[in-house]
Amino acid sequence: MAKNLPVSPLAPASFPDLPKIEGVRFATAAAGVKYQGRTDVMLAVMDPGTSVAGVFTRSKTRSAPVLDCQEKLGGDASAGAAILVNSGNSNAFTGHYGQTSVAEITAAVADATGLPAERVFTASTGVIGEPLPHDRIIAKISELTAGLDPTALEAAAKAIMTTDTFAKGASATVEIDGKTVKIAGIAKGSGMIAPDMATMLVYIFTDARVEQAALQALLSEICDRSFNCITVDSDTSTSDSLMLCATGASGVDATGNAAFAQALETVMLDLAHQVVRDGEGATKFVEIQITGAATDQDAKVHGMAIANSPLVKTAIAGEDPNWGRVVMAIGKSGAAADRDLLSISFGDVLVAEKGWVSPNYREELGAAEMKKEEITIKVDLGLGTGTATVWTCDLTHQYISINADYRS
Amino acid sequence: MAKNLPVSPLAPASFPDLPKIEGVRFATAAAGVKYQGRTDVMLAVMDPGTSVAGVFTRSKTRSAPVLDCQEKLGGDASAGAAILVNSGNSNAFTGHYGQTSVAEITAAVADATGLPAERVFTASTGVIGEPLPHDRIIAKISELTAGLDPTALEAAAKAIMTTDTFAKGASATVEIDGKTVKIAGIAKGSGMIAPDMATMLVYIFTDARVEQAALQALLSEICDRSFNCITVDSDTSTSDSLMLCATGASGVDATGNAAFAQALETVMLDLAHQVVRDGEGATKFVEIQITGAATDQDAKVHGMAIANSPLVKTAIAGEDPNWGRVVMAIGKSGAAADRDLLSISFGDVLVAEKGWVSPNYREELGAAEMKKEEITIKVDLGLGTGTATVWTCDLTHQYISINADYRS
Repeated sequence: MAKNLPVSPLAPASFPDLPKIEGVRFATAAAGVKYQGRTDVMLAVMDPGTSVAGVFTRSKTRSAPVLDCQEKLGGDASAGAAILVNSGNSNAFTGHYGQTSVAEITAAVADATGLPAERVFTASTGVIGEPLPHDRIIAKISELTAGLDPTALEAAAKAIMTTDTFAKGASATVEIDGKTVKIAGIAKGSGMIAPDMATMLVYIFTDARVEQAALQALLSEICDRSFNCITVDSDTSTSDSLMLCATGASGVDATGNAAFAQALETVMLDLAHQVVRDGEGATKFVEIQITGAATDQDAKVHGMAIANSPLVKTAIAGEDPNWGRVVMAIGKSGAAADRDLLSISFGDVLVAEKGWVSPNYREELGAAEMKKEEITIKVDLGLGTGTATVWTCDLTHQYISINADYRS
Repeated sequence: MAKNLPVSPLAPASFPDLPKIEGVRFATAAAGVKYQGRTDVMLAVMDPGTSVAGVFTRSKTRSAPVLDCQEKLGGDASAGAAILVNSGNSNAFTGHYGQTSVAEITAAVADATGLPAERVFTASTGVIGEPLPHDRIIAKISELTAGLDPTALEAAAKAIMTTDTFAKGASATVEIDGKTVKIAGIAKGSGMIAPDMATMLVYIFTDARVEQAALQALLSEICDRSFNCITVDSDTSTSDSLMLCATGASGVDATGNAAFAQALETVMLDLAHQVVRDGEGATKFVEIQITGAATDQDAKVHGMAIANSPLVKTAIAGEDPNWGRVVMAIGKSGAAADRDLLSISFGDVLVAEKGWVSPNYREELGAAEMKKEEITIKVDLGLGTGTATVWTCDLTHQYISINADYRS
């Protein structure tokens, strides 16, 4: 296990000031699930009337908490809700014992909060295949419920970290009908991602009122353009979870409101980019803009093929303007492409067009773009109007060190 | 560009003795396409009556030589055939100029050999996006045709190398109707693979007589179980080419002969494994055996998901028996899986079964398997009768060094 990793060079300068979201309170505790000397459990409790939406990993070997959360989506919002997350153990591939752990924890949280167990959601992140010592978590629940605090979102962000090198938060406010609606979220994750030590968990809270089915539709739609458009290493966790809770405490109904959707997308993109910025071993933040594809879906396929290519990612690590590897990735993606209609730019430098290197391109122009910490690769397929933007990081020696040199 | 790489630790002790295949002659030359002080062009000329079959990259940005070869498949076998390959420049993404280069080279070979240009096949491997200096190749054609030699297959294997750390050859003989039929082949490749320096090229020759359409069907079928079941880094070249030439000089008709097909598969698997053994930075040769999948296709999807997972490959590099990453790869593959029916073994060590770690498994047993140079990962899905075997190598610091630290 990689310990004491240096903070990513792509990390924000500091954790942002997050607004207090009325209707939700947080608490953290050090349960000693695996880590010692740090918090490793976080509890969020939401007031009655809170709508809850969620998007989870599509993995066929998903963890017991994920399966439990998926069953509970769409439950009765009038009761309120709670989310309990632990780090250090993912409770994944733990057989039927894993389901027992989830049932024990959710029952204990229900007892302590007065919520029905059907409104208690959980997530676990950490090593897989080891039984979750759920008794240690349950032993901390009275401490957690006693300490609930509406301002403790940064502490919550820290408690859910595993290999993360920095805590991740983002927020936005939006004026609707003359009132201010707030959105604040936290995330953990440093890849797409190892099941044993890394997983993407995202929790977003708003004091807007949004009917549950509408909230779910909105979350799923924006997820497709944000968290589903990032990749660190093409691997997918058994535990990835994204939840959005709307307490309604602002008294503002934001169902169908475009400004609210826009503000939510800003928060989700910010958190998604922070996950990439904490990608294992990352030294470059890479935005890949695809235009002119036959369809939006094709554009995303091309973008992800480039973003997941080890050869593209190692070239970026080496600051090598190796546009041939971009051509290769487009060719292998399976989506429609015509070599002679393709154009490729690094930043604003046109590199290749009409099936060949651009006549004005000089290697030093591309090399200068590659030296930047934030790199944009633009590809126009010349076929249609399909577009997509995806984000990734480079593939470095540090990635190998984190995942090979250290033993769990 | 990576130069003077050490020979792969997984390389065979020496180049094999290959039998002479009647009806085909080889020559090599140093044309200085890019490399200096080594051969970089190889010509093979086959007698009239030679059937030619080929399988090529499915990349949508495939090179000019590949497009030309694909058009020529199925031509008149009675005329004979020739293959000219250069290393150092892939003639890929070179616009319409690339097609001119192919036309010039094939016309010159046709002139020098008396073959129709429609029976002259070419391949190019090396940097992409630079115009192929085809005049340098054409200037060597008379030297090549003057030096044709039926025993020069090892020299041919060396002339087509790029980042390869060893030359690759394999052969088999088979008795049919009391006569001996010979098969010999060469390959180059050290990944799946970078378009700028690495590409998989395979040329196999036999003195059997096989009707052209049957030869093509056989090659395509075996390719699916051999070259299409290997991966180094999930990337696909714009130039991958596999050709099989049957001269018929033995007088033995092997069309539909099962022993011949078996011998051919042996040669193709041997060459495919050698490509993996020369995978960039490889220190471990990994065989992944999938059984019990819903279908053979599902089995291959699972196998390739494991073989392409950066997290599985770095764990193998670190000699870490990290079976959780195998679970993760199965979960993300998209093919059918049931967590609770899955079993995973490293070599003969049962690691996980029934959705959890095996009760008899101990970490030191898995760790001992991981220390081996050749590693077998067995996965049984418990769903049906689908099977597949795929091969890969580990992902090491040396892969990053080859692809990031050196600048082209």
